[in-house]
Amino acid sequence: MGLNNRVSEKLIDSAARVETYIEGILEPRRPEVLYDAARHLILAGGKRLRPYLTLKSCELFDGDTEVAIPYAAGLEILHNFTLIHDDVMDHDDLRRGVPTVHVKWGEPMAILSGDLLFVKVSQAMIEPALNGKITADRAISCIEKMSRAMIDICEGQALDTAFPSSEDVTEDDYLFMVGGKTAALFKACAEIGAIVGGASDDDVEKLGSFAMNAGIAFQIVDDILGLTADEATLGKPVGSDLREEKKTMIVIHALENASQEELTALKRVLGVKDAKASDIEAANAALQSAGSIEYARQRAKDYVERATSALNSFPETAAKRDLLELVEFFCSRIY
Amino acid sequence: MGLNNRVSEKLIDSAARVETYIEGILEPRRPEVLYDAARHLILAGGKRLRPYLTLKSCELFDGDTEVAIPYAAGLEILHNFTLIHDDVMDHDDLRRGVPTVHVKWGEPMAILSGDLLFVKVSQAMIEPALNGKITADRAISCIEKMSRAMIDICEGQALDTAFPSSEDVTEDDYLFMVGGKTAALFKACAEIGAIVGGASDDDVEKLGSFAMNAGIAFQIVDDILGLTADEATLGKPVGSDLREEKKTMIVIHALENASQEELTALKRVLGVKDAKASDIEAANAALQSAGSIEYARQRAKDYVERATSALNSFPETAAKRDLLELVEFFCSRIY
Repeated sequence: MGLNNRVSEKLIDSAARVETYIEGILEPRRPEVLYDAARHLILAGGKRLRPYLTLKSCELFDGDTEVAIPYAAGLEILHNFTLIHDDVMDHDDLRRGVPTVHVKWGEPMAILSGDLLFVKVSQAMIEPALNGKITADRAISCIEKMSRAMIDICEGQALDTAFPSSEDVTEDDYLFMVGGKTAALFKACAEIGAIVGGASDDDVEKLGSFAMNAGIAFQIVDDILGLTADEATLGKPVGSDLREEKKTMIVIHALENASQEELTALKRVLGVKDAKASDIEAANAALQSAGSIEYARQRAKDYVERATSALNSFPETAAKRDLLELVEFFCSRIY
Repeated sequence: MGLNNRVSEKLIDSAARVETYIEGILEPRRPEVLYDAARHLILAGGKRLRPYLTLKSCELFDGDTEVAIPYAAGLEILHNFTLIHDDVMDHDDLRRGVPTVHVKWGEPMAILSGDLLFVKVSQAMIEPALNGKITADRAISCIEKMSRAMIDICEGQALDTAFPSSEDVTEDDYLFMVGGKTAALFKACAEIGAIVGGASDDDVEKLGSFAMNAGIAFQIVDDILGLTADEATLGKPVGSDLREEKKTMIVIHALENASQEELTALKRVLGVKDAKASDIEAANAALQSAGSIEYARQRAKDYVERATSALNSFPETAAKRDLLELVEFFCSRIY
């Protein structure tokens, strides 16, 4: 079986356990409309990468994954909460092939259901302590990591919102934003899995470094796919990222390094909502000839290496293999 | 010194300690716009009733109020977070005499800064455990009470949003909404103060019952003031609650009990944004003659009595006096 199928099967396996927990903690109460809205996106699917990362990090320390399930579920709920609020902020109408929450129930209910999901994260994370399945100290450490990640997420999103266009953004800004928007939560997932698994502070930090770097690589790969993949793979029209002037590492590199001619081709479509397909093609060719796509590919590889080496000190267990395979899987998408 | 001045002075005293903590935990980081937005409302003022309730409940058990400060601050932050999101949902432009966050920074930043405040609540509540000032078990219990309250708040607000008009609302619905929107957080404040103070589970429950009933009384009194107070006291035009068709206990009572003539006067202004002052006056007179204002006044008194009797078993300490005085203060506003 190829890497993709292997990882996909494992993801599906672990997702089922987490989804049962999510179903339970989001069981409808009065008023049902609030719970319908809160359940809509999270039960519409998703790869469940974050719960997988949490559970595998727990396994790496021979921890009881039953105890890690509420944390894995909580982190997936946190992720979905941020997506619902992001969709309101960005006025996005579609996600995972379904209408976004604010399109279906209106903005007030989208804001509220997001808030409800956020508090469910806390509930999930204290439950194992209340049931005596984990020490209160470890539960507190998990909440600490989750809170830290959520602050990074808010800061990353705020920076993204505050910058009107990609021209003002440096690669450092990009890493700050990606650190917040993607990598911080990956980091918290691995840290929390490790804490639940009984890891030492040092090992928790190693897992955090692994997942942080993996998360940055994941985002850069996503940026590359946004340019090179076809519409079926993307789930949105080719060139959307350029038309929406997304602050990707590729565009930031090009704006600093491309020739005058390449820049002209790029700027013809950047932020131009109705840019023609032929102009998108020309812009893509310019990004290619400017070396910006290759640059991003190389940077993604660097971060994968950093991620991998963070796990060097751990013995070659099945859990470690699964974690490394997950990162490989992220990046296999661009090779 | 009269009751009002006495309570006001005590509120100001306890507010200062809490505000110092709030300033610290919301110290600006990058990007500053996010922190400016998050600090705006909470540093613009407020009576700080919730922190006061928390600290006094801690004192009732001879607890160290220094340890309770982060909890008191966290609960005030939670309150302000819900206000920011409520203002976005209700499109309100002004609060505490300052423009609302979304008016100043736009909706995306208002949503985000609210989310940031919410996560700061968790941070505040785990900090004393991380510093060894409270056991992790007690900190977990505090987070449990806070989460419970926040779920009630979301459900109450969702019910309020889901009901298009006050005609569909029963008194039970009203109590559910008020339970969520006001009383649940009061309850959590008293419970958490008691937990930090070292109270037994039984005593925590008594404090919760005290504050829950006090919170309902507080909201009913607010409803009455919305009809009977003048513009200077209200901070908004007389009759706003009627024009906006707020689901108050008074209106709900009238819709069920008023005569045909009284109903006609009421419906002439209910939900009518540009209702004339003379019609508002006539509607007020109808609510008076229908006995709806007197009914609400009596109900508020009932809840004050329930609140008071929840503290019966506690000795007559200064802290108990302060708690009872606070409730008296709520209601003195309508006598």
